Amino acid sequence: MLIGKLAIIGVGLIGGSLARALNAAGACSNIVGYDSDLASLEKAVDLGVITGCSSDIAVVVADADIVVLATPLSATEPLLRELAGVLEAGTIVTDTGSAKGSVVRTARAVLGDKSRQFIPGHPIAGTEQSGVEASFPELFRDHLVILTPLEENDPAALRLVTRMWESCGATVLSLSINHHDQVLAATSHLPHMLAYALVACLAEMDESEEIFRFSAGGFRDFTRIASSSPEMWSDVCIANRENLLQVIDSFKSCLDIISGYIEAGDREHLLELFSRAKDSRDRYLSGQGIHRIKKQ
Amino acid sequence: MLIGKLAIIGVGLIGGSLARALNAAGACSNIVGYDSDLASLEKAVDLGVITGCSSDIAVVVADADIVVLATPLSATEPLLRELAGVLEAGTIVTDTGSAKGSVVRTARAVLGDKSRQFIPGHPIAGTEQSGVEASFPELFRDHLVILTPLEENDPAALRLVTRMWESCGATVLSLSINHHDQVLAATSHLPHMLAYALVACLAEMDESEEIFRFSAGGFRDFTRIASSSPEMWSDVCIANRENLLQVIDSFKSCLDIISGYIEAGDREHLLELFSRAKDSRDRYLSGQGIHRIKKQ
Repeated sequence: MLIGKLAIIGVGLIGGSLARALNAAGACSNIVGYDSDLASLEKAVDLGVITGCSSDIAVVVADADIVVLATPLSATEPLLRELAGVLEAGTIVTDTGSAKGSVVRTARAVLGDKSRQFIPGHPIAGTEQSGVEASFPELFRDHLVILTPLEENDPAALRLVTRMWESCGATVLSLSINHHDQVLAATSHLPHMLAYALVACLAEMDESEEIFRFSAGGFRDFTRIASSSPEMWSDVCIANRENLLQVIDSFKSCLDIISGYIEAGDREHLLELFSRAKDSRDRYLSGQGIHRIKKQ
Repeated sequence: MLIGKLAIIGVGLIGGSLARALNAAGACSNIVGYDSDLASLEKAVDLGVITGCSSDIAVVVADADIVVLATPLSATEPLLRELAGVLEAGTIVTDTGSAKGSVVRTARAVLGDKSRQFIPGHPIAGTEQSGVEASFPELFRDHLVILTPLEENDPAALRLVTRMWESCGATVLSLSINHHDQVLAATSHLPHMLAYALVACLAEMDESEEIFRFSAGGFRDFTRIASSSPEMWSDVCIANRENLLQVIDSFKSCLDIISGYIEAGDREHLLELFSRAKDSRDRYLSGQGIHRIKKQ
């Protein structure tokens, strides 16, 4: 068995799906959970996602091989403070937060020497749903998990966390913290802002109900991510503030160029810009998920 | 048989799918095609999408009950000019353009008295693919088709165009021209601009290849419409310029509000805005396609 006891802090879409995937892979003897929402925690036990739970975090993490934080980013600091006092030397802690710089600063400040037991991670997977009811074992299959290891991390601990994610069907890559936060600002955090801004903007228009009614599949796909967890995403905005503001600025410059062409009736430049965008997308995103990555 | 002879001008994704749907429904005796791309036209015949074709538009539309223009908007004026000279009194013309104001101005200017034979239409359906190879008979099923009839239209002609689309499985609604162009600017034209701007912006960044590589399913869904036809969309921008510029401005104001909150580290207002957006989307778009509309 790869892992003896796994403790999942925050049994929602991500934590629940991790538990389900490890159960399906037979990679873990015992998965226990902790969540600030007790009803959700009991549901996770009822659904068979986890085998046990407690409202006492010390009980949950005792003798654990790995503790996984799968909570919104704003819960990271208070949880690491609680863990700092009870964390055994043989236990690895990892997380699933969408921004890594702020998590690492917090971990080093709060855990002190124990930061060597903390391996920052981020599965690039999710849906617009939240909660353990929405979790499913295939969530990470053919997806990337990015780890941003600390220099003080133990290589054996890094290998175990890597194998944990691999046993869920994911491909694990290591990136520097800054690199992760810059790339994710562009590919994930910015699109979420655009989707939220679009829906918020349309919802304020006169006859907004009708506007949504006349939308087609393209609009539903485009705005799907605006149905994501508001708590998670307001945390991400704060945690990755500088990188996110920078890519929002780049985006606005590009939209201004398009507006300028439209205002000038400049079909030729619009055609050129749209063609370049289409080419880029078709070139890079024509494959599906991990297959595209494996081929490189 | 609902329709004797149907002439499709522009046998691409939309024109080809219309032909396939009418064939599948047995609603039409004879469907002939015309296209500026002769190879594409021959392919449409080879695929059995249309039964005949000609490079002479007069031959194609002779004795037709309905002529459907399914071309990019910039082709509308030259095609209507050609039609003006050969259009028989018993033939109805309709179109599929994504903006209606400019089409109607052109139709009245070019067709003169024959504008009563022209019924402006817009099927709210499509994919990011183009060309007759991408066409399929279910494209319009459970989708809306909006007609923006002219006061001079013959009610019987309007009924026939309505029944043509209904036989493809679509629900047909009538809207005023301005109303159509305003609503579509918000729900369709603006999202396409955002998707093109996002992909163009990321493609210009250093390490853009890596940026696309680290994207997940949400990004692929979000940018899918940036793979749409650049020709079609540069035409739409010009045709619906005023309405589009107005909604781009509204969107930018909303994005500026979000940037302001991020800059100020104002989690509370971000949470409130994201929650409102999520609620709107979940409330209006929780159903699928037409089912949502039928329930109202």
